[in-house]
Amino acid sequence: MAPLVTFLSDYGLEDDFVGVCHGVIARLAPEARVIDVTHGIPRHDVRTGALVLRRALPYFPAGVHLAVVDPEVGGERRAVALRTAEEDRILVGPDNGLLAPAAEHFGGAVEAVDIAASPLKLERPAYTFHGRDLFAPVAAHLAGGATLAEAGAPVEVRALRTLALPRAQLRDGVLVAHAIGFDRFGNVALDVEPEELRASGLAVGHRVRVNDQDAQYVHTFVDVPPGELLLYEDAYCALALAVNRGSAAGHLGIDLDAEIRIRPA
Amino acid sequence: MAPLVTFLSDYGLEDDFVGVCHGVIARLAPEARVIDVTHGIPRHDVRTGALVLRRALPYFPAGVHLAVVDPEVGGERRAVALRTAEEDRILVGPDNGLLAPAAEHFGGAVEAVDIAASPLKLERPAYTFHGRDLFAPVAAHLAGGATLAEAGAPVEVRALRTLALPRAQLRDGVLVAHAIGFDRFGNVALDVEPEELRASGLAVGHRVRVNDQDAQYVHTFVDVPPGELLLYEDAYCALALAVNRGSAAGHLGIDLDAEIRIRPA
Amino acid sequence: MAPLVTFLSDYGLEDDFVGVCHGVIARLAPEARVIDVTHGIPRHDVRTGALVLRRALPYFPAGVHLAVVDPEVGGERRAVALRTAEEDRILVGPDNGLLAPAAEHFGGAVEAVDIAASPLKLERPAYTFHGRDLFAPVAAHLAGGATLAEAGAPVEVRALRTLALPRAQLRDGVLVAHAIGFDRFGNVALDVEPEELRASGLAVGHRVRVNDQDAQYVHTFVDVPPGELLLYEDAYCALALAVNRGSAAGHLGIDLDAEIRIRPA
Repeated sequence: MAPLVTFLSDYGLEDDFVGVCHGVIARLAPEARVIDVTHGIPRHDVRTGALVLRRALPYFPAGVHLAVVDPEVGGERRAVALRTAEEDRILVGPDNGLLAPAAEHFGGAVEAVDIAASPLKLERPAYTFHGRDLFAPVAAHLAGGATLAEAGAPVEVRALRTLALPRAQLRDGVLVAHAIGFDRFGNVALDVEPEELRASGLAVGHRVRVNDQDAQYVHTFVDVPPGELLLYEDAYCALALAVNRGSAAGHLGIDLDAEIRIRPA
Repeated sequence: MAPLVTFLSDYGLEDDFVGVCHGVIARLAPEARVIDVTHGIPRHDVRTGALVLRRALPYFPAGVHLAVVDPEVGGERRAVALRTAEEDRILVGPDNGLLAPAAEHFGGAVEAVDIAASPLKLERPAYTFHGRDLFAPVAAHLAGGATLAEAGAPVEVRALRTLALPRAQLRDGVLVAHAIGFDRFGNVALDVEPEELRASGLAVGHRVRVNDQDAQYVHTFVDVPPGELLLYEDAYCALALAVNRGSAAGHLGIDLDAEIRIRPA
Repeated sequence: MAPLVTFLSDYGLEDDFVGVCHGVIARLAPEARVIDVTHGIPRHDVRTGALVLRRALPYFPAGVHLAVVDPEVGGERRAVALRTAEEDRILVGPDNGLLAPAAEHFGGAVEAVDIAASPLKLERPAYTFHGRDLFAPVAAHLAGGATLAEAGAPVEVRALRTLALPRAQLRDGVLVAHAIGFDRFGNVALDVEPEELRASGLAVGHRVRVNDQDAQYVHTFVDVPPGELLLYEDAYCALALAVNRGSAAGHLGIDLDAEIRIRPA
């Protein structure tokens, strides 16, 4: 089977940045297959990139997973390649937390190297296009069979940057969650994964209290009247809040990371 | 030759929806090649998706053709896979009319299965992301060699949903057509395919009457003065109306599906 | 190794234009691999397309390089395929200057054919979609092993259209450059390639005069205080001007192709 490289970034598709990275990989690992996860991560939004990478990668075969959302490019942040405990996935990108939730999902990193001075990078790299000159070439060589040891200098895995994310928990029968993302409709993504949800005992059909508001836990928007608050599981089976034909963020008056307390009504 | 999956949807490219479907297909049919037709269909616009699919597929090799524009996801609509009479093409998607014009173009469906409860779908599917959890996995398995019978329960092909589309016809020397789409410039797509056009006897260079307006049948916009109405064949060799540097829709004062009567001047 | 086709255009990704060209190539050269450079070139902007193609192609393996930015489609402009002196790259597209800078980068064209009446184009081509009906089929056949002689009628390479581009030069110790592009932040791309830059003797850390303004030659924006003008090397190692948190174009009051005189302070 052809080796696989997946590619996520905040480059967008208007410019040639993504295409050129594909070109570099095709030069260095002509037998590799490259699949784009998305290049629509909001510019420099490491946290959104990290959350999208974590939820998307389990749907991809194991391979070399290149990810570039890199506001500190040209600065002090480390550049890394790492191997996960489970499934032997290789993640390549800036060491700014972007790779951390995905790595953790696969049991954490068991080996990591600093690739800033990698012998595998392109000659005469530009100051600010590490995607093309550093990350893509290293990912290509790793897909072509290079080892992590050939790609860079060892780094203690405990020294890798993590991402400070809120964490839902059950407290006295109340599920204490957090607003970890908003979409353009005002729907609110919560930090409640399927496991935590099952532990909470909440289930579709229940009436619940969300902070000091009434809401229903339903399958989808149209199961409640317009203007009413609902709890539902989103496309990644994580818990989310919405208002049918309205904005849950506005309805609840909340900002990013706000605490959301959910309990049976 | 690698089996082919084509993929059309209204998912857009800002999110990871398209990428994740590619990932699912790569897991289940690693040898398949996936080509995106477009993911820019306006959200939930089944009719536009159906028309684009019909005109685009003849340019693609026969394969498994995955299409997802699915406003009723989570509701009652059937999910299907079907095989066409000509070229043995396999179409996979919601049974809401999206696949119907393309299937008809290839001689109609000769076999169809309901895949809602397919044994080939992902475990624990989400309520609203059938592209990832149902349609992409079924398409992947079919590309990998599974039969329709393995993908679902037989459905009478005559029970499949069709799409109510107007249909141009010649009536007493008048070509009675309909406005089946507008682009953002006010150009009007008509339901006149190349065959009907040839039967009408109209040809480039003719002066014509369109409803009660004068127009010229020309090759392209610049063949008439600014402000004048023109008939031309669009990129898919279907008849279309435009006003050079203006809006034909506004000029004629018409809405979607309006009748357009065309006769020699 | 699979033959390679790269593809650049101004088609955008909202419609099915790009997908359908991929389909055509997959029909005619099923073994070819197609990589998109970008389809985000501003509509009909031949010069931007030409500059992006020139700077991107060196990062891609040699192959057949399809490029379509074609405001004169349907008009008199020639359609061509050409072979470069270095690396045997094949370029296919309209003969409107789009291919010229890239061809020149690889030593210029050594063989060219007019493909307007190519026996390799699709039957019954549409009047205005040469990407699908002419350029993609010719590119596919060339990737599949057809020779230029089989694709069209010979053209003198000196008859090919060039692109009138300004050209930086050293004059009495002053680097006389030109503003060849602006991005949405007002950053100014200059026509100074790495070679010309080295010849000028300018280097990071120098204080310089740009027209009649003071500026610093630095690595990146944050190396100067907000509001100050800076010279830097962009992602393609070409010289560029910016104002930290401001607009260099506005600061200097310049239009496209304006002369920019740079000398040590």
